[in-house]
Amino acid sequence: MSDPRHIASRENPGFKTLRALSDDPRRQGRALLDGIHLVTTCFARGIAVEQLLVSESGKKNAEVDELLRGAANVECVILRDSLFREISGVSTPTGIAAVIGIPPAPTGGLSGDAVFLDAVQDAGNVGAILRSAAAAGVRDVVLGPGCAGAWTQRVLRAGQGAHFSLAIREQADLAAALEASAATSIATVARGGTSLYELDLSGPVVWLVGNEGAGLAPDLIAAASVRTTIPLASGSESLNVAAATAVCLFEASRQRLKRPANPLRA
Amino acid sequence: MSDPRHIASRENPGFKTLRALSDDPRRQGRALLDGIHLVTTCFARGIAVEQLLVSESGKKNAEVDELLRGAANVECVILRDSLFREISGVSTPTGIAAVIGIPPAPTGGLSGDAVFLDAVQDAGNVGAILRSAAAAGVRDVVLGPGCAGAWTQRVLRAGQGAHFSLAIREQADLAAALEASAATSIATVARGGTSLYELDLSGPVVWLVGNEGAGLAPDLIAAASVRTTIPLASGSESLNVAAATAVCLFEASRQRLKRPANPLRA
Repeated sequence: MSDPRHIASRENPGFKTLRALSDDPRRQGRALLDGIHLVTTCFARGIAVEQLLVSESGKKNAEVDELLRGAANVECVILRDSLFREISGVSTPTGIAAVIGIPPAPTGGLSGDAVFLDAVQDAGNVGAILRSAAAAGVRDVVLGPGCAGAWTQRVLRAGQGAHFSLAIREQADLAAALEASAATSIATVARGGTSLYELDLSGPVVWLVGNEGAGLAPDLIAAASVRTTIPLASGSESLNVAAATAVCLFEASRQRLKRPANPLRA
Repeated sequence: MSDPRHIASRENPGFKTLRALSDDPRRQGRALLDGIHLVTTCFARGIAVEQLLVSESGKKNAEVDELLRGAANVECVILRDSLFREISGVSTPTGIAAVIGIPPAPTGGLSGDAVFLDAVQDAGNVGAILRSAAAAGVRDVVLGPGCAGAWTQRVLRAGQGAHFSLAIREQADLAAALEASAATSIATVARGGTSLYELDLSGPVVWLVGNEGAGLAPDLIAAASVRTTIPLASGSESLNVAAATAVCLFEASRQRLKRPANPLRA
């Protein structure tokens, strides 16, 4: 670790930059990853870390200390606990965070499956959907206007490192991206669609997922190849959007799993 | 609507009771349901509402006004906007909330499927799981110690009315409840369990779901009939607990759906 700078005042220009970064990562093109798990994932995936931020009490934590030893050539800034808390966004932070550059938006077309998010507003939902997408082997996630920012701390926290396995596009024109895609596009709707379990999901799919309250925009539903609905118990209106997306992605995953060969029946 | 009381001061004893209720609903045995959707659901399900709370600006909202007209015999309290915001827990409340008595814990055994939550801490996760359980036709949800309180505002908000279709037990001894149940018990584990898709889920199931970080307690895993894992893409560690629970519950739901009879093949 290079000789660390210390920040002890809210008036420090470096702190003001970090605060601004914490509030609006896109503006600086950088993101702040808080907590041991995300920072470790960063290093494990070979992501270039611009800066490590450590709180005074975080520095005394054995796991944090080990992380710092392994990152000898990364610039390190030590913050007074109260200042670290201000940029961390959780009430009891472990005391380590990494600043990284937000990866440039991927160029070229989509490959394989994709998830399109239309105005999914809740950061926890966006993060959980990114996590499910990565876990289901989806590579491309495309966020339209009105979605929670993918590189904000709450989404990063809920994503648990999924960001680093995904190609994420933000503020995208979903209708245009849909038109450019050759995959079957499936609009998820709360009612009236074909049962999810009757769909053949063996080929590449673009999943269209809508806003928590209003659902998908009508033009996206109209542009989709298929509309699907998850059959629910009578009396139930709908699922949480992240739960519904997980059910859809893993139904595709289930259909594609190679059944183990059974030699007795071969 | 009876002639409404007005509360304009934080020092008002009625306001102090509401604040305490908002912070810790269990202590008063009452819950606070914020927002038009939850209040409407309450009335639609015939839940006894003790009190309606309306903010001064909420009173000018046409939807709120209609709700109040339909609830002529319920006590109504009008709060200054700043006070309403303090008890509502969202930054821009619509301005209507209902106070209800928390239903007594169900007595007797479990019936059919159940979901057991072991120290699921995040209120959004608990609420989403309740919502998925109701939507998958599960009746019983059993929360062990360490779970977010089922009747707190954040859980109620994420549950979107699911609470009223469920039999919810809190602070339960999960191991004892498991021993008393005759259903197949399935421990959800991040790795090493039987693939979810290889399980026969046609009979009643008790799903065991664990803490966001630590997973299920070892004694619960040991006591379960089966351990199951959702097969994930390589490189992925785990799903969000609410997403994983939705995938499990709807795999059971899928297996049980009656396929539509095909007359051509009959």
